[in-house]
Amino acid sequence: MADYRIAAMKSPIEVVDYLFARLHQMGIRSVHGLPGDYNLVALDSLPKNNLKWVGNVNELNAGYAADGYARINGIAAIITTFGVGELSALNALAGSYSEIVPVVHIVGYPSTISQKDGLLLHHTLGNGNYNVFADMSTNISCCVERLNDPSYIAAQIDYALQQCWILSRPVYLSLPTDMVQKKIEGERLKTPLDLRLPTNDPAREDYVVDVVLKYLTAAKNPIILVDACAIRHRVLEEVHGLINKTNLPVFVTPMGKGAVNETHPAFGGVYAGDGSLPEVKKRVESSDLILTIGAIKSDFNTAGFSYKTSQLNSIDFHSTHVTVRYSEYPGVHMKGVLQKVIDKVDLSKISAVPGPYMETEPKAEEDDSPTITQAWFWPSVSSFLKENDIVITETGTANFGIWGTKFPAGVTALSQVLWGSIGYSVGACQGAALASRDAGNERRTVLFVGDGSFQLTAQDFVICNDGYTVERFIHGMDAAYNDIAGWHYKDLVKVFGAKDGTYRTYQVKTKDDVKKLFTDKQFNAADCLQFVELYIPKEDAPRALKLTAEASALRNAKG
Amino acid sequence: MADYRIAAMKSPIEVVDYLFARLHQMGIRSVHGLPGDYNLVALDSLPKNNLKWVGNVNELNAGYAADGYARINGIAAIITTFGVGELSALNALAGSYSEIVPVVHIVGYPSTISQKDGLLLHHTLGNGNYNVFADMSTNISCCVERLNDPSYIAAQIDYALQQCWILSRPVYLSLPTDMVQKKIEGERLKTPLDLRLPTNDPAREDYVVDVVLKYLTAAKNPIILVDACAIRHRVLEEVHGLINKTNLPVFVTPMGKGAVNETHPAFGGVYAGDGSLPEVKKRVESSDLILTIGAIKSDFNTAGFSYKTSQLNSIDFHSTHVTVRYSEYPGVHMKGVLQKVIDKVDLSKISAVPGPYMETEPKAEEDDSPTITQAWFWPSVSSFLKENDIVITETGTANFGIWGTKFPAGVTALSQVLWGSIGYSVGACQGAALASRDAGNERRTVLFVGDGSFQLTAQDFVICNDGYTVERFIHGMDAAYNDIAGWHYKDLVKVFGAKDGTYRTYQVKTKDDVKKLFTDKQFNAADCLQFVELYIPKEDAPRALKLTAEASALRNAKG
Ligand SMILES: Cc1ncc(C[n+]2csc(CCOP(=O)(O)OP(=O)(O)O)c2C)c(N)n1
Ligand SMILES: Cc1ncc(C[n+]2csc(CCOP(=O)(O)OP(=O)(O)O)c2C)c(N)n1
Ligand SMILES: [Mg+2]
Ligand SMILES: [Mg+2]
Repeated sequence: MADYRIAAMKSPIEVVDYLFARLHQMGIRSVHGLPGDYNLVALDSLPKNNLKWVGNVNELNAGYAADGYARINGIAAIITTFGVGELSALNALAGSYSEIVPVVHIVGYPSTISQKDGLLLHHTLGNGNYNVFADMSTNISCCVERLNDPSYIAAQIDYALQQCWILSRPVYLSLPTDMVQKKIEGERLKTPLDLRLPTNDPAREDYVVDVVLKYLTAAKNPIILVDACAIRHRVLEEVHGLINKTNLPVFVTPMGKGAVNETHPAFGGVYAGDGSLPEVKKRVESSDLILTIGAIKSDFNTAGFSYKTSQLNSIDFHSTHVTVRYSEYPGVHMKGVLQKVIDKVDLSKISAVPGPYMETEPKAEEDDSPTITQAWFWPSVSSFLKENDIVITETGTANFGIWGTKFPAGVTALSQVLWGSIGYSVGACQGAALASRDAGNERRTVLFVGDGSFQLTAQDFVICNDGYTVERFIHGMDAAYNDIAGWHYKDLVKVFGAKDGTYRTYQVKTKDDVKKLFTDKQFNAADCLQFVELYIPKEDAPRALKLTAEASALRNAKG
Repeated sequence: MADYRIAAMKSPIEVVDYLFARLHQMGIRSVHGLPGDYNLVALDSLPKNNLKWVGNVNELNAGYAADGYARINGIAAIITTFGVGELSALNALAGSYSEIVPVVHIVGYPSTISQKDGLLLHHTLGNGNYNVFADMSTNISCCVERLNDPSYIAAQIDYALQQCWILSRPVYLSLPTDMVQKKIEGERLKTPLDLRLPTNDPAREDYVVDVVLKYLTAAKNPIILVDACAIRHRVLEEVHGLINKTNLPVFVTPMGKGAVNETHPAFGGVYAGDGSLPEVKKRVESSDLILTIGAIKSDFNTAGFSYKTSQLNSIDFHSTHVTVRYSEYPGVHMKGVLQKVIDKVDLSKISAVPGPYMETEPKAEEDDSPTITQAWFWPSVSSFLKENDIVITETGTANFGIWGTKFPAGVTALSQVLWGSIGYSVGACQGAALASRDAGNERRTVLFVGDGSFQLTAQDFVICNDGYTVERFIHGMDAAYNDIAGWHYKDLVKVFGAKDGTYRTYQVKTKDDVKKLFTDKQFNAADCLQFVELYIPKEDAPRALKLTAEASALRNAKG
């Protein structure tokens, strides 16, 4: 019997092709995940939609890789299987939610009939409840759509993808096996998704801009402080527009690192309260007007809530509102506001007192011993980095150490300062490198990861310091639970099947070793996977980490 | 100022010591998990409570290990850190929920004050919501207790542990940093937890027993079919009591494997519908009364819902009810009912027609080629296994293959036929071996795991068949997404730091290799970690798997 519903369609297309075509339209070229019997048929359709399949060894890594891919590419997708697969990826997706990274999570579900009948299928809890996993993901998704009825699926997909992009958070799509190849109207695909931000109400926006300009022109030594949401909510163009026009001194928070061209003369360094260099701290905290753009004032981003700034001297730009001192202006996105501020600001009325200039080569603390110390290492990294590198640091000492590294122009930094799941950086590194390759501009990707975190993913720079140093500074300096087994890290590359000649491994134990490595031509070219074991004493940590850890330990104890 | 609340206590004890003392009372000797700053102080108290810390490399493995430990030990505990740690373990705990395994999940939380203030701490979603992760775990726990107030904590802990044991499912305890060392009354510890099942209402129980006996004596060729819940709800003593008294032919389902002494003369084999050996299928399906004990009729446990039995010929014993034909008797636990059936049954009135006898040495299909086939391998394993071995099989071909292996007495089998998360077996193996050591009776632990699953955990018998064979049989025999990277598996042991002499590795590619290995004295003694790479062609799968996979593929496609 002919299906009249399909006969009426102008360009019938399978659900899975519709979905994949949309992903492709949004700029996705590789899809991460693991196969499972509830998603296998969908996977078949990837190649014909020009999507590469990146099979990871486990779903957590796939999730981390998707997050890394999204941070470089703008958006990413991961496909898992019902229950076992999706739950394994939850930590990664919660991380994307927390850190505001748009990842499309597609979960292969049992057929709608099996669901309706409450069949006792594998990968269920055995209780016939087919909603429970989607419910769990509701908390860490900005949109959950169950694709159970062909009449609505196209609209559901479009809405979810739009939300994903605009809110910059994960979305969850359940795709039952019997929906994968159902035919839906493909004409819709001719209209690309509308991914523009909702426009601010002009009157409201003008009002806010006037208030901002009033305070800005009244201020004697205003500065700009750029944070994570400036990156995540895509206002870096406006940020640079503002810097270039006003020449106000600009600082970044740890999570904002990479948002600003650090070779710009207005760049003053990394501000993180007591965790800042003294000059930076003085300059920021003595400013009478701080324009914060996209602030996330989390504990680790502020060295343990150690800002000594006053809200009376602050204007905060967010994606959902602007706050001027204590007055809140909801319903305006910072993008429009910032652009109007740039357009309207009268330079003759602004006092741009220059801030401290961050040296290109921060003085790496020299001492007599050949031992590599954290204080020496991170500034030394500055000279090794190249323009447009992608730099990934792991939760642990690396996340704090990188504050002391000055970036060349165009460097993008990836880390999880807020979510802080260890193991993240290794997967994210893979995803980021892939995104850069997909974009056709293979940027060099440099990863700094601790030995403890590396073991979580086991598949760069491994900081070998006998275990969980960041935890040692919070509690248990010599406790056995902060030790880890001694792996032969660099041999892993070979065991995991890398062919001779496709990788290089190094062991680096002294400052001289580091210096040689950083000036080694071949190493700098990075024409293949390079794996460095970097030995640093376990009781050594970046200063910022020590401060933050102290604050955490105190807060944990307070009761 | 003196704390009058504490002064009034007879034996004040810290919350963490109370909790750990209870765990110890319940028979736990090792605790799995990973450190994190929100649980570090709690970890300090493990040694003085005679609990060993088993630091795993990641939380998913820790969860798998805890599940394995619980299946051997009766109950297990895992400690993770807020957000990042607990979510990484979710899949493992969902598995324990689905497969009915009691695991106590203790999550180190930020202090109650930080929670109340909604602080923007690391490992949060950045939205001040401190309930979200506990909410997510509600779906996969039989009890969730937030330990936020010292006055209630002892009662909360006791209730949760009791539920965990009696319902045999995971429980979730949030332990904020500022509660860890709060003092509570320790006198309670002198009364051990009451872990007895609630007693059945005697009149109701007697009624059910009479109905059961009526049908049992009327039947001409009754049989017993033992399934997973007989193990999980701890009625194996009653099961054996019933077999020994009645001598009725007894069969097990795949999930029930290990529940029954397979060398008992009444043992007839593994019943899984069309997945059974022909003789077994005939005998079970021609029986006019099947006493099923603890059935979980899931797809993979029934070779794709392929039972050809009638409910009119069935009496089903469960932990919450008994079903006789279509009549349901709720509110009676099978334990009491079975015991009374044993006590009351009049043997002179029972017709115990013997079933087929399962050979000790199933004929391993012989063929001319030296290639190791699934059909040949699994029966051959029978002779290698020893009494009281612990045998762990992974989701994939191993889970189906093991149906063809006859167990010596006392073998315990671990697998996840219902939940089916790959990677499970490696962690579970570690936990099971540890539980056996903790019990002072180091049983030999034998693991069969696929190359794909092994890569998920990467830390026995690795079935090297170039990828995800079980998926190939459902869909995509030659699809790239079912391939995996070629690892040098056995070299991993060394890379992971095993000292020379503490492990042995083998590569086994022919039937003769297998035979030699199985008769090798040293290998049989298994006095250290032994790692076997076992090569089987990728298009080869156990017959039962082929059938089940076919059924799955069909069901996935039906729409
Ligand atoms: C998934 C997860 N589990 C546990 C933690 C707790 N944790 C935070 S940092 C850390 C240790 C990191 O050690 P390593 O990678 O060696 O870094 P180091 O501080 O030594 O540089 C741990 C266990 C976490 N953040 N995420
Ligand atoms: C966590 C998780 N992710 C994905 C799956 C889907 N899955 C089921 S079996 C399987 C392949 C197993 O391959 P292998 O361990 O090599 O076993 P084989 O069938 O080859 O013996 C996969 C990917 C799963 N069950 N669990
Ligand atoms: Mg370390
Ligand atoms: Mg395999």
